[in-house]
Amino acid sequence: MGLIEDLKKGKLPENFKKIAQEERVEVDSLVNGVLKGEIVVPQNIFHKLKKPVVIGKGLRTKVNANIGTSEYYPFPQEEIKKLLTAIEVGTDTVMDLSTAGDLDKIRRSILKKSIVPLGTVPIYQAAIESIEKRGNIVEMKEDEIFEVIERQAKDGVDFMTIHAGVTLKTLDSLSKEDRVTGVVSRGGAFLIAWMIHQGKENPLYEQFERLLEISKKYEITISLGDGLRPGCQADASDRPQIQELIVLGELVDLARKNGVQVIVEGPGHVPINQIEANVRMEKEICRGAPFYVLGPLVTDVALGYDHITSAIGGALAAFYGADFLCYVTPREHLGLPTVEDVREGVVAARIAAHAADIAKGNKRAWEQDLEISKHRKNLNWEKQISLSIDPERAKKALKERRRGVKEETCSMCGKYCAMKIISQVLGVETLKKC
Amino acid sequence: MGLIEDLKKGKLPENFKKIAQEERVEVDSLVNGVLKGEIVVPQNIFHKLKKPVVIGKGLRTKVNANIGTSEYYPFPQEEIKKLLTAIEVGTDTVMDLSTAGDLDKIRRSILKKSIVPLGTVPIYQAAIESIEKRGNIVEMKEDEIFEVIERQAKDGVDFMTIHAGVTLKTLDSLSKEDRVTGVVSRGGAFLIAWMIHQGKENPLYEQFERLLEISKKYEITISLGDGLRPGCQADASDRPQIQELIVLGELVDLARKNGVQVIVEGPGHVPINQIEANVRMEKEICRGAPFYVLGPLVTDVALGYDHITSAIGGALAAFYGADFLCYVTPREHLGLPTVEDVREGVVAARIAAHAADIAKGNKRAWEQDLEISKHRKNLNWEKQISLSIDPERAKKALKERRRGVKEETCSMCGKYCAMKIISQVLGVETLKKC
Repeated sequence: MGLIEDLKKGKLPENFKKIAQEERVEVDSLVNGVLKGEIVVPQNIFHKLKKPVVIGKGLRTKVNANIGTSEYYPFPQEEIKKLLTAIEVGTDTVMDLSTAGDLDKIRRSILKKSIVPLGTVPIYQAAIESIEKRGNIVEMKEDEIFEVIERQAKDGVDFMTIHAGVTLKTLDSLSKEDRVTGVVSRGGAFLIAWMIHQGKENPLYEQFERLLEISKKYEITISLGDGLRPGCQADASDRPQIQELIVLGELVDLARKNGVQVIVEGPGHVPINQIEANVRMEKEICRGAPFYVLGPLVTDVALGYDHITSAIGGALAAFYGADFLCYVTPREHLGLPTVEDVREGVVAARIAAHAADIAKGNKRAWEQDLEISKHRKNLNWEKQISLSIDPERAKKALKERRRGVKEETCSMCGKYCAMKIISQVLGVETLKKC
Repeated sequence: MGLIEDLKKGKLPENFKKIAQEERVEVDSLVNGVLKGEIVVPQNIFHKLKKPVVIGKGLRTKVNANIGTSEYYPFPQEEIKKLLTAIEVGTDTVMDLSTAGDLDKIRRSILKKSIVPLGTVPIYQAAIESIEKRGNIVEMKEDEIFEVIERQAKDGVDFMTIHAGVTLKTLDSLSKEDRVTGVVSRGGAFLIAWMIHQGKENPLYEQFERLLEISKKYEITISLGDGLRPGCQADASDRPQIQELIVLGELVDLARKNGVQVIVEGPGHVPINQIEANVRMEKEICRGAPFYVLGPLVTDVALGYDHITSAIGGALAAFYGADFLCYVTPREHLGLPTVEDVREGVVAARIAAHAADIAKGNKRAWEQDLEISKHRKNLNWEKQISLSIDPERAKKALKERRRGVKEETCSMCGKYCAMKIISQVLGVETLKKC
């Protein structure tokens, strides 16, 4: 029996009450959200999660961190460090995007240590195994894709990016569009290469029901990938992107009909003035399926600072209704992230998510801001810092610049601290009498 | 003869053509903007500027960096380093907020080295000199404030923050509001302390015309400070803040009537969903005067990362029409920024400004994004980096993670680079035939 069937029969998973409490929502609204498909609970039957996560409408905005080896940095231990760091600074989920080394072994070691849901992009492994076996991607067998998916499912992967929207129809649309950066999705590029060489439809689309069977068996949440997402401002919201979104919307229906949980991935690179439209389109076309955005990056020029460009875009997307933000690290577009990059990326995405939650009136978020602000007013540094988004960094930043500071103020204003002047010299009562 | 009179008579400053070209606007629209008060040109008659700046409607969004000594870090040389760094990474203006050491000497040395307009907050120096002279702020003489203003004007300061909106009327509003963080503006706090002790109206308000005379004499642009800006999400857009904005709007009229250029300062801490309203209110109440926002910070919890919270808020504010973003460094709320903090703060604010310019359709901004994206597609690292917002950092970030990378790709995707697969394996022509 799967989660959806259980809920339909009124059988609640034991952790639902606790989750609802943490999210400050009623258990009923959580259940209804899952049944409608507006909320998902990514959890493989084989993965014990210490920190299960619910993603979707009316809930706290969630954050994902991508980790994984690459050709030039095939070091599993480094990726475990990234996993632990990402969890330490509060990521809600992690994706293993490894493309080098013993992929099965790496995934299993990450799964073992991950107390949060783990996602993968199985087409990577299928493509890489094809290259290893026969020197190319384009002769990959269709069954091999599904074999990898099932192998990863058996290991306990909680959610999988499936680029089922890269179809002959969307490629037709792509061929008519004069894109600046073409295709920027690795999964999308693998599948397009295969489809053109084979002259065939995308197996993930054509055999989508086969995928649904596996997903149902292991309780995998499908994350419909956007293989044709824009790679620059100029390509944002173009016809191939929206054409693919329509296909993804149809697949959402199919997944729901089969009792499989599903979310939809979104761009990418999007100017600020197009973010609202992108979110509203996804919510309409995909019938309220949770929206998982990769950024979006609001400019293409900030190499080395794309955690900031995507914090801007992510905050805005989440404010308009995106539910799940994939982090972007400062190393994006330049190389594989380091452990420190992962930390910066997660914190930037969490800031974006939290700022959107504040704007949406999320109670838990407001309480945190209010409490910190009261401690700020009272110049209580310890409490302010312990409640902040990354206490370790805040503590360090305070300490580094406290040369000679003996009082309760900081080294910016010192004795000219506005809070101190107003609180101590005048006092609220004096002000009220004025 | 002042700039406004000159323009009215059809006399153009010699650099107007070049500025209009750089901004990609017609000279006429620049002139009309200045005459309407929707655009300002902060330039003291005694300050030769290598990089003059125009701020306002229809122009590229500008960025300001605050520097200056404090009680615990009274090192002028460090502040000169900050000045040069801020200019190197592209700040449009700088403000000297020094509160320790020989303030006249520090300001003069900064002015000498600043190729961009320099701003100050003269009430700081007036208050500090009063403390030095008589041990307190509250017995400061009214004339002393104007004496400091004229002293700074003579030195060549281009724009000055004047907290003339802190009046008995706005204080009445403040006394009725149960604010969480009270007053967070230093200038505001100094003046409130003085007003309550003296039982008198704010001299900067009561003798505003005296200020206008000095401003006119030296061509100072007045930046109307928001002494009652909110210091946390909970206090945002409250009555005292908006009450002060109304007073500032009235002062805008007065300044314009006297041919003095004026801009208006804005918050502060503002949730994402209130930013649009804040910008629209300023534009209405202050009759289109350029809006200079201090952030805004979209959450209070991100100690150590407030350059990111303010990049989110600043991008959104500028998108809705704010013209000028005051940077916030990662050290905000924790201490006086270091040189490195200044760099991070300026770049984050420039990213916000640029992203807003993209969203507003600014031609120059679009050209830069398009060019970078074309080079990204062609895997031309050198050109991509040289056109990026902080080439030095991008270069370093690329180099650090290029272990063993001999090809043209980066260490993230290596041989699985989507751009490479699509461009080289398939080629655009193959795709078109598909």
